[in-house]
Amino acid sequence: MSSILVIGTVAFDSIKTQQKEVNEVLGGSATFFAMAARQFTDIQLVAIVGQDFPKQYLTMFEESEIDLKGLVISSGRTFRWKGEYEDNMNVRHTLETQLNVLEEFKADVPAEYRKTKYVFLANINPHLQMKVLDQLESPELVCCDTMNLWIENARPDLEEVLQRVNFFIISEEEAHLLTKEQNIIRGARQILKMGKFSLIIKRGGYGAILFTQRGEVFAIPAFPLENVVDPTGAGDSFAGGFMGYLAAQERMDLETVQRAMVYGNIVASYAVEGFSIEALAALTREDIRERMRQFVRMTHLSPV
Amino acid sequence: MSSILVIGTVAFDSIKTQQKEVNEVLGGSATFFAMAARQFTDIQLVAIVGQDFPKQYLTMFEESEIDLKGLVISSGRTFRWKGEYEDNMNVRHTLETQLNVLEEFKADVPAEYRKTKYVFLANINPHLQMKVLDQLESPELVCCDTMNLWIENARPDLEEVLQRVNFFIISEEEAHLLTKEQNIIRGARQILKMGKFSLIIKRGGYGAILFTQRGEVFAIPAFPLENVVDPTGAGDSFAGGFMGYLAAQERMDLETVQRAMVYGNIVASYAVEGFSIEALAALTREDIRERMRQFVRMTHLSPV
Repeated sequence: MSSILVIGTVAFDSIKTQQKEVNEVLGGSATFFAMAARQFTDIQLVAIVGQDFPKQYLTMFEESEIDLKGLVISSGRTFRWKGEYEDNMNVRHTLETQLNVLEEFKADVPAEYRKTKYVFLANINPHLQMKVLDQLESPELVCCDTMNLWIENARPDLEEVLQRVNFFIISEEEAHLLTKEQNIIRGARQILKMGKFSLIIKRGGYGAILFTQRGEVFAIPAFPLENVVDPTGAGDSFAGGFMGYLAAQERMDLETVQRAMVYGNIVASYAVEGFSIEALAALTREDIRERMRQFVRMTHLSPV
Repeated sequence: MSSILVIGTVAFDSIKTQQKEVNEVLGGSATFFAMAARQFTDIQLVAIVGQDFPKQYLTMFEESEIDLKGLVISSGRTFRWKGEYEDNMNVRHTLETQLNVLEEFKADVPAEYRKTKYVFLANINPHLQMKVLDQLESPELVCCDTMNLWIENARPDLEEVLQRVNFFIISEEEAHLLTKEQNIIRGARQILKMGKFSLIIKRGGYGAILFTQRGEVFAIPAFPLENVVDPTGAGDSFAGGFMGYLAAQERMDLETVQRAMVYGNIVASYAVEGFSIEALAALTREDIRERMRQFVRMTHLSPV
């Protein structure tokens, strides 16, 4: 079992869905990833928060096998994001972003983390993702996420990072934005040319699909959910389940990667059943096993 | 192996995609269904066309194991539909509908068909679907499709038909329209209350999902396609592969139904690779077997 180092954001999210509204709850790409992946292995968090960040969250992280040596507590205010979801939960609008302490973040990797082999570059400015990679001795498995902001405004940096990753995990909208291609296969083929990575395209409530450099394709439907409370963090939670499983197994063969996608799917299915990290904080390994059994039942095709 | 009786439309379609435009090509719900299902069993077509319907199509139907005793050739003009697809092929706009001979269609079932056990009520006015059911002696497996027009304008008739079907096969948009419910599980639960049928919701480029009265759920991703030429008829082709397989097997257990969904998926994946019935006309059983193998490879999760 290997530890995972994650760099990304820790944030206060204010979120409006058609059902409910919450104000300044715990969020951020590194937060969701860490709270998901900690089900499988221990996590090293490289991130920054402000003086306003509640001690209770630090305690929760520490009690969740999330090591905080890489968490900077700065004198400013924590990063804030405000967004709203349309009725079907698949379309989201950003209403406000306050970078705050993120603007001064140096992404320094503590000496104790430099030998870490499994790395998740959660959604954050790609020059910070790169800085982390530069400080690591010999990472073995690097997964990377991004967002529309960096695709549009920091593409050269992003493409440089992509040279050094094993898995690039993005949403279908981000794949369209990267390639201007509506067809997922033609889009995937273009993206695969940007590096040597395997590509996972997340399709929200419709599952995920893997494309490898060798032409392998693996598709899974989403776990059907009756109650989607808040999709924020679903992608990070998917990555957390995915990478957590790979790090726990210390394997990267296709079959393990396929199973890891299903674990990602299932952890994400829990994440969206609550606001913030509510559902992830309450999640147990037995919950994951239970939904894994259900998923196999509802997708397994018996041989003829 | 049982024959399938299908009632539905035979039409001339004029279709515009962002790549290409075709004018008055062979289309219609019964046409696509029949050309898909004939891979598995022989078909009895109950439909109407006008004097303008080319003999070559009649010959093609007959050479495709599609019996035409139930096809009325009337003195008027064949039904015409004109539509346009948006860039991502998932959104379609109807530009024009000319009912023509459809307005006088009586849906008479030839005496030779009245003992037929497998029936597909393709998309057409539900009072005609009902008329067909009323003429059959003891149908064993009835599947039914519909469209937004009937959901909005002929709902009582549609709900009456639904009392008598075993499978109701609709698109996700139609499920939303029927229930005003965005969540697919809550929507499915409402629809299941309208009868004793199992429900299959087609999700376009995202696969399909089955809900049974006993609470079983089965989900499959779509077969990923590089070249979607024209999605018209995809749903009818799905139903054709689905029901064709069931009729060939003469079984209705859950495992057979699950496999039938995959066959539907695969036949539909071919159908959208050409305009009109081009791809379906050229399709062979070996093509279907080949994509079936690929589909299993790209979705099968190996046991731990």
